[in-house]
Amino acid sequence: MKEERFFLGEIPVLLRVPSRPKALLLALHGLQGNKEHILSLLPGYLEAGLALLAFDAPRHGSRGRPPSGKDEDYLEAFYRVVLRMAEEAGEVLERVAPPLGLPLVLAGGSMGAFVLHLLLSQGLRAKAALAFIGSGLPMKPPAGRRIQDPAVLALYEAPPTSRPAAYGQTPLLHLHGSRDLIVPLARVEETLEALRPHYPPGRLALYLEEGTGHEITPLMARVGLAFLEEFL
Amino acid sequence: MKEERFFLGEIPVLLRVPSRPKALLLALHGLQGNKEHILSLLPGYLEAGLALLAFDAPRHGSRGRPPSGKDEDYLEAFYRVVLRMAEEAGEVLERVAPPLGLPLVLAGGSMGAFVLHLLLSQGLRAKAALAFIGSGLPMKPPAGRRIQDPAVLALYEAPPTSRPAAYGQTPLLHLHGSRDLIVPLARVEETLEALRPHYPPGRLALYLEEGTGHEITPLMARVGLAFLEEFL
Repeated sequence: MKEERFFLGEIPVLLRVPSRPKALLLALHGLQGNKEHILSLLPGYLEAGLALLAFDAPRHGSRGRPPSGKDEDYLEAFYRVVLRMAEEAGEVLERVAPPLGLPLVLAGGSMGAFVLHLLLSQGLRAKAALAFIGSGLPMKPPAGRRIQDPAVLALYEAPPTSRPAAYGQTPLLHLHGSRDLIVPLARVEETLEALRPHYPPGRLALYLEEGTGHEITPLMARVGLAFLEEFL
Repeated sequence: MKEERFFLGEIPVLLRVPSRPKALLLALHGLQGNKEHILSLLPGYLEAGLALLAFDAPRHGSRGRPPSGKDEDYLEAFYRVVLRMAEEAGEVLERVAPPLGLPLVLAGGSMGAFVLHLLLSQGLRAKAALAFIGSGLPMKPPAGRRIQDPAVLALYEAPPTSRPAAYGQTPLLHLHGSRDLIVPLARVEETLEALRPHYPPGRLALYLEEGTGHEITPLMARVGLAFLEEFL
């Protein structure tokens, strides 16, 4: 395995390449996560021949303090991170992917899963994608809260699931816990409902763990790897 | 790999043992299936180190004609096969498992998944179990049909899911298609509802493929193997 750490502009990037890579996995971390943490939640992926690529989102890792639910402008701050993270994912892929020449697969956890949805709905093409503990819909705003930021408002008015055809039938597995209080299962079900008519049989799936909360479990990671491998 | 074929009484048995087996998988076939067919639906399991054990249920394989939906007594004939298949599973395991000395895992497809539920609810212990395209509830009888056979009636009055504690928290994954018209997804959901309170987080799970019908897909098989491996 060869590990590289470098900056693309201000974006800290981590790339781990096994000896005989068969695909490149871009892993998108969640709120308060970072590039090392999301890779630590995917044990066995490198050994299975996946080159692992991750980066710190704005306000994460060494890039400052993540938005907090206690902040007055939390909702807008959160989605500003999301929007910029999606742009940065494109920039990182543009630089890192071509020299490797590997098929691309995607994984995202929580906020990262929403970014993954955003990327797919913007036309990014991958062999398969894993949405851990996240959905393609933005979180419901607190009662009475009006969104001011035009870019965030646009995201609410046209969330990823409003462009289901743009996903290009990319094989997509959601992995979720039945007791997730942060991203309720109902949001995943709404996401599946929106995408379903635009998918052929067997390429859109849900792995649901009973009793699990907002957590990427080792079992989810293992099931996710199996799903990816089917499309490589 | 070493393959053995033999009879236990009138039960035709098939056993495939890889060079370094780490567990024994008993695979229970569905209506109109047979021992060879169910194993053909589990590609990669032998290579992953599972010894594969299967047998032909009564009225299957060389044992005659399976019950048919066209038969007048279909429902009772079907569940007589189920009840006897569960007994035979016990007999086969009793003979085959001890000399191998391997941890036991279970898989069943459709009718075989119901037999698997029956076995778990009768206290059979396994490291993990896969219920492909089946549930722990018997099929709904046609309107107006009264069940005569006392043994089948007893199964309807106390289906496997009525004994959820007896499952002993055996890790259990259901794998199902959203368009299954033979075993509707709702029956799996009812099954999970009954078992849920008796399971710790993360040991009871559902893998749901959108658009898939009453079919064990290669992707289901792969996801199922990943689930089993977590518990070995």
